Amino acid sequence: MLLPQINDPQQLKALSVEELATLAEEIRRFLIEKLTATGGHLGSNLGVVELTLALHYCYDSPRDKMIYDVGHQAYVHKILTGRQDRFDTLRKKDGLCGFVKRAESEHDVWEAGHSSTSLSAAMGMAMARDLKGEDNKVIAVIGDGALTGGMAFEALNHIGHERRKLMVILNDNEMSIAPNVGAMHNYLSKIRSDRHYLRAKDEVEGLLKKIPAIGGRLAKTAQNVKDSLKYMMVPGVLFEELGFTYLGPVDGHDVEKLIDTFHQADNVSGPVLVHVLTTKGKGYKPAETDFYKSHAISPYKIESGQSLKAVGNPMYTEVFGETLIELGREDKRLIAVTPAMPGGSGLFPFAKEFPDRMIDVGIAEQHAATLCAALAMEGMKPVYAVYSTFMQRAYDQIVHDICRHNANVMFAIDRAGFVGADGETHQGVYDIAFMRHIPNMVMMMPKDENELRHMMKTALEYNDGPIAYRYPRIDGTGVALDAELKPLPIGTWERLRPGDDYAVLACGPMVQVAEEAAELLRREGIQLGVVNARFLKPLDSSMLLDLAHAGTGMIVMEEACEAGSLGSAVLEFYAEHEIYDARVHLMGVPDIFVEHGSIKEQRQQTGLTVEAVISRVKAMKASSAFAYKTTSTS
Amino acid sequence: MLLPQINDPQQLKALSVEELATLAEEIRRFLIEKLTATGGHLGSNLGVVELTLALHYCYDSPRDKMIYDVGHQAYVHKILTGRQDRFDTLRKKDGLCGFVKRAESEHDVWEAGHSSTSLSAAMGMAMARDLKGEDNKVIAVIGDGALTGGMAFEALNHIGHERRKLMVILNDNEMSIAPNVGAMHNYLSKIRSDRHYLRAKDEVEGLLKKIPAIGGRLAKTAQNVKDSLKYMMVPGVLFEELGFTYLGPVDGHDVEKLIDTFHQADNVSGPVLVHVLTTKGKGYKPAETDFYKSHAISPYKIESGQSLKAVGNPMYTEVFGETLIELGREDKRLIAVTPAMPGGSGLFPFAKEFPDRMIDVGIAEQHAATLCAALAMEGMKPVYAVYSTFMQRAYDQIVHDICRHNANVMFAIDRAGFVGADGETHQGVYDIAFMRHIPNMVMMMPKDENELRHMMKTALEYNDGPIAYRYPRIDGTGVALDAELKPLPIGTWERLRPGDDYAVLACGPMVQVAEEAAELLRREGIQLGVVNARFLKPLDSSMLLDLAHAGTGMIVMEEACEAGSLGSAVLEFYAEHEIYDARVHLMGVPDIFVEHGSIKEQRQQTGLTVEAVISRVKAMKASSAFAYKTTSTS
Repeated sequence: MLLPQINDPQQLKALSVEELATLAEEIRRFLIEKLTATGGHLGSNLGVVELTLALHYCYDSPRDKMIYDVGHQAYVHKILTGRQDRFDTLRKKDGLCGFVKRAESEHDVWEAGHSSTSLSAAMGMAMARDLKGEDNKVIAVIGDGALTGGMAFEALNHIGHERRKLMVILNDNEMSIAPNVGAMHNYLSKIRSDRHYLRAKDEVEGLLKKIPAIGGRLAKTAQNVKDSLKYMMVPGVLFEELGFTYLGPVDGHDVEKLIDTFHQADNVSGPVLVHVLTTKGKGYKPAETDFYKSHAISPYKIESGQSLKAVGNPMYTEVFGETLIELGREDKRLIAVTPAMPGGSGLFPFAKEFPDRMIDVGIAEQHAATLCAALAMEGMKPVYAVYSTFMQRAYDQIVHDICRHNANVMFAIDRAGFVGADGETHQGVYDIAFMRHIPNMVMMMPKDENELRHMMKTALEYNDGPIAYRYPRIDGTGVALDAELKPLPIGTWERLRPGDDYAVLACGPMVQVAEEAAELLRREGIQLGVVNARFLKPLDSSMLLDLAHAGTGMIVMEEACEAGSLGSAVLEFYAEHEIYDARVHLMGVPDIFVEHGSIKEQRQQTGLTVEAVISRVKAMKASSAFAYKTTSTS
Repeated sequence: MLLPQINDPQQLKALSVEELATLAEEIRRFLIEKLTATGGHLGSNLGVVELTLALHYCYDSPRDKMIYDVGHQAYVHKILTGRQDRFDTLRKKDGLCGFVKRAESEHDVWEAGHSSTSLSAAMGMAMARDLKGEDNKVIAVIGDGALTGGMAFEALNHIGHERRKLMVILNDNEMSIAPNVGAMHNYLSKIRSDRHYLRAKDEVEGLLKKIPAIGGRLAKTAQNVKDSLKYMMVPGVLFEELGFTYLGPVDGHDVEKLIDTFHQADNVSGPVLVHVLTTKGKGYKPAETDFYKSHAISPYKIESGQSLKAVGNPMYTEVFGETLIELGREDKRLIAVTPAMPGGSGLFPFAKEFPDRMIDVGIAEQHAATLCAALAMEGMKPVYAVYSTFMQRAYDQIVHDICRHNANVMFAIDRAGFVGADGETHQGVYDIAFMRHIPNMVMMMPKDENELRHMMKTALEYNDGPIAYRYPRIDGTGVALDAELKPLPIGTWERLRPGDDYAVLACGPMVQVAEEAAELLRREGIQLGVVNARFLKPLDSSMLLDLAHAGTGMIVMEEACEAGSLGSAVLEFYAEHEIYDARVHLMGVPDIFVEHGSIKEQRQQTGLTVEAVISRVKAMKASSAFAYKTTSTS
């Protein structure tokens, strides 16, 4: 076994090409075995084994900067840079991060979790290098899916213009998370199928010699013909036109060819794009054949790839997907729009029934939002189905194109709240804070999956502008689902438990947490009210006024950043109404990035637990005697 | 005169091509004369006179949808659609909007102010059309500068893949707001200079006939040669590769050629891109020769184009630009990054002195942000100079790449607060609300231009992560500028006027408003304290605790959306510190989009005035007897 001896990428340089190929197989086995227990991004990592080996063989990390787009395909990089022994802790709290992580290793130079940032990062590092007069290499590895993200094009445009030395490796695996869509994908497919062009080069030169000598105007034309042949020789004309030298396509599972191509690339003076063809899941049948499941998987059976995840209640995502079909049958104006997440967003059943009303735009959150605005303005009822964290990319389009036009766009915001193992780049804790302040926006969050269904109906029947419902990345509560869907009155909350002295105003899964706390407190003789604050905007004014009037001590509880979210909205409400003595305590996510772990651990870390509610209520009770007086903590 | 008779674009169809050309000249004179008094986007509108005429001649608005990217080049469209008589009110309160405005006319189908949204809008309208079984045309007019925005590429990628019928008009004026940068610009320049390729077509076919008959493998090669000639015939190969039919380039000032090309385009089944070459400022020398000034101009002298704007104190923008040079001399790690706004951001002097440290990335706010993160991580000190409203595009990159990496990026946020005539698409009122909740962020706003200089120094010396200073689009106060720049202690406010009973906590220009109000109140014997809340994050805890302890009635005043901004932060602070009786009143921008007008009018509309402060203080004074009791307003 070679692998156990590799602690540092420098050791690779002593290996032969044959040994590198052997090592590749050892790494594959390592990944397949380790991930059975931990889960993780198996398929994409199996696809880049040889590529990563070749990079570390040819270049000197960390002096040469290796930037992995999205960063979930860096497991092989982690294995080669001294982190083999930590793979049992992958994606667990305080364990190895599933993405590139600077705190883990000097070899990790750029963190990401959202796609399409690597080219901008590479350009910045190349510029800094040149300004400092250094000469290290800068290498970005980007998938074909990530290349469709607008910011990747912004970077290509800049890099191609400035012509600094850097290398972009286009890891073309023909299938990113979802089947690739878009003209860029079609273009790359054409290159893949046109590989004979490369072989034709010599033959064409022979042909040109057969053109008889000519003079006059035709000489110029002949020269043009010769110039244009470059397009035939170079399958990557699109990249060449944007100022890159294009090399490839090259077989991404042939270490020797990869090494040759990198040497070739080193001799190019400006930016170079190396087009590498890889197979996602390479070497593990279940991952090669089921692309969706091989993206980010749970622990699985090694023989079949079958998930070991316990079967629980249907996830919110699934209930969303099924309900959308019901609504789609009822209203043919309903259209689903997804930025490259048809599977993750539970949209496959809808797509199957309504192929014409299912739009996958690729990794293009901005375009998706503005597209929805235009669809709505022409009388359609678009649902923008998106993860909370990725919706961040569309903030400006939500302000400028959707809310300013007051367009009837529905937002289905999935993965709202903590996301668990994906960690800090994926936490869905900002959307309330970045959407609540936009005029015309209506926002909801259901206490359970049944309420989600009614909220979807509410949104469909609402015709006064944008409306959003957000739901978490967890199993539902298992509640019975009502057959008949009824719209909720806009801006109304629900009192689930009476309690005038103390009450929790909670949204989403925090409602269950509050209920549990209330139940435990009841046994101690303390009555804690629970309010389902299901509208995040507008708030339920009359209930808020009642609560203040009753002198209720309130806890606003949300799995969202404390700054600017629901708690903040409640405080603003009282300030606007000149109610200066409302006692409102905030329980939300503090001002930190919350790292990977289980959702339970993330709630514990941030104090969003039953115990925390109980101790807060007891503290309020103890201090209630002087709560109406100034309590300076200075 | 033809122009005064045109109230409806249908009337154009009765005109001859010669009459259209005459009308074009009349429209030019109309624009030049009207805009001397009102100011506005003169250059870009002079550039699209014939283009807009040809569109309305060939198509039936509003049945056919005409979508103008950015929307500031729609004056000619407004003239032709019955709004001639309102041009005296252009960009004034309740007057004609400087951008496309749906409320103004049924011919205005898509509003914008930010660039690069038109292709997504066109795609949405084309999809809706097809789903509804209609057959109208959809036409997007986009400038070459706007094409570099990432979301435009996301849309191109989607449109080219889906191949629905729609027309993109690339209005290539060789110069958008700033000189175009980027590989796409280089590519378009090449097309412009290669126009002889078009003429060569027949000649090439002749040449091909001279190639002797061949068989075997070479036959295939010869076919490839012929195929590749398409690239020579089609200057827009990049667009062709992305799935568009490319037509052009065509002279954008030749109405007849434009009409011919549109007819050609109508016969294409899928998406078509028409490349139109125009001259910004066409027909008016001062606008043709000074591209920067011809973007959005003040009223001017008709003979010279010279601005009539009164010379006031230097604008904040200018002080920023000059100070950046001082800092650049002091610290060579300092780099300025702008997304296509070198002039508007006051960076020309810096660019002149430090050409290597001035990076204009084109319209690419996302890339600019991530580039800054990478530059900072490699030891540089980048300043991201950007307008508040355009920074909205980079929200995700600020969260994911800058703040999560805790990178030492400085933000120079210009146009923070109301912007006046540009109106609702450009208001800089959201940045506090969308940046304050991001971990690691530090934010400041100066009370005057001298303090701005010290804040710039503060930012440069701060090495613990991202730090922002925001400043308004107005003249400075005229205060003396300190020669020596001293960093401010992070998180400290400044008490400008004592006052224990009532105090205004204000930031930016609201400090002056509060000071004026305090001075007037003083004459009435009422003492109003004024605090310069110059740090928006972190807040000055000790001052906030003192204020609460003293029982001061507070007004937080900011030219920013009330939801989620500084006022909200102050409320959260007291909630966190369990101070339940602090009396805090919020004065900010309410939950509406504020339309165009003067900044003064916008402040009046939203109650951010001296009078409003005075009446608020008096109301607080009158109610202070019962301010500690519950005041239900239900």
